[in-house]
Amino acid sequence: MLGRCAARALGALRGLREGAPPARSPGPSRRLLSSEKVSDKNHSLPKPCWSKDMRLLFDQFMKKCEDGSWIHLPSYEYIATQRSQDFPTFIHAYFPTASELINKEKLSQGRLFTRSFEDGLGFEYVMFYNDAEKRIVCVFQGGPHLQGMPGFFHGGAIATMIDATVGMNAIVSGGIVMTANLNINFKRPIPLCSIVLINSQLDKIEGRKLLVSCNVQSVDEKILYTEATSLFVKLNPEKEFDIKDLVLKSAPPA
Amino acid sequence: MLGRCAARALGALRGLREGAPPARSPGPSRRLLSSEKVSDKNHSLPKPCWSKDMRLLFDQFMKKCEDGSWIHLPSYEYIATQRSQDFPTFIHAYFPTASELINKEKLSQGRLFTRSFEDGLGFEYVMFYNDAEKRIVCVFQGGPHLQGMPGFFHGGAIATMIDATVGMNAIVSGGIVMTANLNINFKRPIPLCSIVLINSQLDKIEGRKLLVSCNVQSVDEKILYTEATSLFVKLNPEKEFDIKDLVLKSAPPA
Repeated sequence: MLGRCAARALGALRGLREGAPPARSPGPSRRLLSSEKVSDKNHSLPKPCWSKDMRLLFDQFMKKCEDGSWIHLPSYEYIATQRSQDFPTFIHAYFPTASELINKEKLSQGRLFTRSFEDGLGFEYVMFYNDAEKRIVCVFQGGPHLQGMPGFFHGGAIATMIDATVGMNAIVSGGIVMTANLNINFKRPIPLCSIVLINSQLDKIEGRKLLVSCNVQSVDEKILYTEATSLFVKLNPEKEFDIKDLVLKSAPPA
Repeated sequence: MLGRCAARALGALRGLREGAPPARSPGPSRRLLSSEKVSDKNHSLPKPCWSKDMRLLFDQFMKKCEDGSWIHLPSYEYIATQRSQDFPTFIHAYFPTASELINKEKLSQGRLFTRSFEDGLGFEYVMFYNDAEKRIVCVFQGGPHLQGMPGFFHGGAIATMIDATVGMNAIVSGGIVMTANLNINFKRPIPLCSIVLINSQLDKIEGRKLLVSCNVQSVDEKILYTEATSLFVKLNPEKEFDIKDLVLKSAPPA
């Protein structure tokens, strides 16, 4: 079970990928980019667009969180570090060769892909983490704008939610990571606007490599839609604590 | 090189996945669902949001189309069959066990995932097909709403464009298909708002299986960002001609 301190660190790490602001703010300053819009809406809480089944599953998992064995992960549109003038430092620290290629004008418009749709039309999801079992369960309600073959989700939309879920599992287990491989077996098409469970499991850590697998099932677990394995690589591990510090310094006041 | 008849068939097949209306309309009727919105905008033509580089690449490939060796593939938001009251017939023919699971109320709001963003914010792309070489090249300009790690595209957004491109290659080569496997190696993160080339190649057809590979490169071909292999399975091949007919019957008047 994660303690409070661990949960804070988890919040900081999570912020880098998922847009969650860190759990505390040790620094007095918050230096926003002038052209930036701010949204602090937590998308992991119930919304009117969530179906009855989605709310029911949310309530069931929140119940499991009461004894601390599961943790409800928040999710925000904007990345905490990106709000800060320190952002170029972050980019340069982790991606020195790529930093010059980034279009800095457009960066201020950047929005997390999985949170860039209007409520109910795209990705509605909430993740729960079990630290003892190194598992994440994502409850996912896909909207009508995720269509591929008529009547079904696009394979890319499924791949996106898989990447988001296994990626979060890798982040909470290993820190700042990038997807290196994603191998997805699509067993059955998923009807548009379904609610599904994405069950992710950390299988192994080998040095900087993290192996995470997952499956996508119907809510009653009777239909196995998709299976996937993934490989993540930790970035620049010797800088991890610097980056954590950077994230914390760029947090909004508590 | 595809002849006119082949091009018509290609248009019909394409319509099922990519939302392109078929090239001709043999039937007088077009039976729209009452709650449906209609958009016939071809997203594969230059738009104000396309960058100078994107337009340049478009012009270069259009030049290659002049001798017929390459074909410019159109792309629409709505799937031709979905506009029709025959749509439930299509679903039942191809997915008899899944058809009952589909939420018919929400289906009328269905939009192709890769065309569901406002111009310039999400997926801007155009595909060109070379029949002799069984290749598709996709010119892709990703918008700021496709962000994953701050400053870079989300892995799911890249997976989506890969699935769309290799899927189109499988469709033009094999008819109605579904993705069975997608295996992606992410070699370098792609800076947000980049333009990249997705080069797809049909490698093999084995019965109902089609193997398609691709890579994602920088426009100058100096940076290899991603490599992928995929497996597609033809659906219910004995019904293929019925479905083609269904598509043509549901086409708008010429």
